[in-house]
Amino acid sequence: MDTKRVRLVVAYDGTNYHGWQLQNNGITIESELNRCLSELLQEDIRVTGASRTDSGVHAYGNVAVFDTTSRMPAEKISYALNQRLPEDIRIQKSEEVASDWHPRHQNSRKTYEYRILRGEFPLPTKRLYSYFTYRPLDVERMRRAAAYLVGEHDFKSFCQVGAQVETTVRTIYSLAVEEQGAELVIRVCGNGFLYNMVRIIAGTLMDVGQGRKEPEDMPAILRACSREAAGPTAPAHGLTLIGYEYETAARGNETAR
Amino acid sequence: MDTKRVRLVVAYDGTNYHGWQLQNNGITIESELNRCLSELLQEDIRVTGASRTDSGVHAYGNVAVFDTTSRMPAEKISYALNQRLPEDIRIQKSEEVASDWHPRHQNSRKTYEYRILRGEFPLPTKRLYSYFTYRPLDVERMRRAAAYLVGEHDFKSFCQVGAQVETTVRTIYSLAVEEQGAELVIRVCGNGFLYNMVRIIAGTLMDVGQGRKEPEDMPAILRACSREAAGPTAPAHGLTLIGYEYETAARGNETAR
Repeated sequence: MDTKRVRLVVAYDGTNYHGWQLQNNGITIESELNRCLSELLQEDIRVTGASRTDSGVHAYGNVAVFDTTSRMPAEKISYALNQRLPEDIRIQKSEEVASDWHPRHQNSRKTYEYRILRGEFPLPTKRLYSYFTYRPLDVERMRRAAAYLVGEHDFKSFCQVGAQVETTVRTIYSLAVEEQGAELVIRVCGNGFLYNMVRIIAGTLMDVGQGRKEPEDMPAILRACSREAAGPTAPAHGLTLIGYEYETAARGNETAR
Repeated sequence: MDTKRVRLVVAYDGTNYHGWQLQNNGITIESELNRCLSELLQEDIRVTGASRTDSGVHAYGNVAVFDTTSRMPAEKISYALNQRLPEDIRIQKSEEVASDWHPRHQNSRKTYEYRILRGEFPLPTKRLYSYFTYRPLDVERMRRAAAYLVGEHDFKSFCQVGAQVETTVRTIYSLAVEEQGAELVIRVCGNGFLYNMVRIIAGTLMDVGQGRKEPEDMPAILRACSREAAGPTAPAHGLTLIGYEYETAARGNETAR
C-alpha cells in the first residue's frame, strides 16, 4: 500500500484543552486530531506537531503531519476532518508533503502574538484571548526595550528553568508592539522559541511598560543568562501562535491568516 | 431613607445567557445583575435596561439603572459588583443619575457592530463573536447599499414581523463597512433600532455582497415596508452592542470602549 505524508495547518481555541501534547489525563489538541483522523481514515493515525503549545494557548496556524495509506486526496482531508472535529479546532489547510518532511526539522519563521487588554475593567468578550491589566503601560518604553531583543542572542534568561535544549541561542527577526484600540499586541517573529520564551518576553516588556524595569536594562538581562534576570511569565491565554513559514517549501509554502 | 438612582454601563459575553431580559427559565444578564446587586446591597434590586439584547448577542456598553437606599458611593458599586458577577459580565462604570432618568426615555445615539469572518475555514477563537462565511463578499457593493440606509427612513422592512412599536421610522447617522484583516465589520450608529433591525441590515448587506441583491435595490426594499423585501436575519452571535451616547447628559456622558 502506498503511504503518503500529509501536512495540516491547525487553528484552535486553547481554552478547553490541556495544551497540544498527548497526556494521560485530559483532552489535548493532539488527542482530538488523532481520534478524529483515525475515525475518518479508518486506521491508527498519530500526528506529529510543530509546536507543543501549553494549556490555554491559542493558534491560527500550528502545523502537524501524519502518514496514511488512505486514498482520500490530501487537500480534501481538511473538509472531511472539520466535519468531525469539535468547533474549537479547525483545520485551515491539508496537503501532501515529501515523505521525509518533519515539522520540527526545518528552517522556519514562526510568529506569535501576545495580546494585552488595557482599561479600568476587563471586557468579557476578550477575556479568553488577551491578558487584562488596569495598570498603565508606556508603549514607547516597551518598543525601546523590544528593539534590544531583535537579532541573534542567547535567550537563556527568557527560558523556563529546567527546559532541556541543546542551545539557548535563537534569532528574533522582528518584535513589534502595536496598539489596536484598547488592545496592545506584541508580535514576534523568529526562527524558534525556547519554552515559555514569548510569555517571558511579554512579561518583561510589561514590566518595562509599568516602570519596574528600564528599556536599557535589556542588554544586561540577556547577558545574565539567568531566568531570574527577566520579568514574570505572562499568562498563557494572551498567547496565540499565528503561524509558520517554511523556508524550504515542501510542496508549497503556507502562512496562517 | 434617601434613595438614589444609579446607572451602570454593562459589558458581557452573551454566549452563555438567554439574552438580557428576565425569563422564567434560563439565566439572563438582567437576572444576574439583580441577583448580584441584591446580595451586594442587601435589598431587593431590580434593574431597568436600555437594550434587551437577544440570546448570544454581546455588549461592550449596554446601560441599566436601579434605585437603592444603600450608602455605598455610586462610583464604587462597579468595583464591588464585579467581584460578585460571573467573569462574562463586567460593569464598566457606575454613577449616580437624576432620580427620573430612564435609559429608554432619552435621546441617545446607539452603536452596534456586526462582525463577519471571511475565509475558507472558520477560526475557532472568533467563532463566538463573528459570523463565518466562506462565500466571497464584495465590500464596495455592500458600502454602496449601506449608503442608501443612512438618514431618516421607515425601516419596517428591516423589522422582525410581529414586533409591537408605535413607529417604524428611525434615523441611522452612519453605517460603515470596514475591513479589519479577515474580518468585515458593519458599524451602525442610530437614534434607535427596531427588533432585529441590525441583524436584518447585516443579512441584507451580505446578500448584496454575494450578488443576490443589487445595491440599487435598497430604496425599493425600504419603500416596500415589508419584512419579506429585505434579506435574512444574520445570526445573533456576530452582533455586539458597542454603546450609548446620551445627548442630554444626566450627570456626565458615557461611551463604552
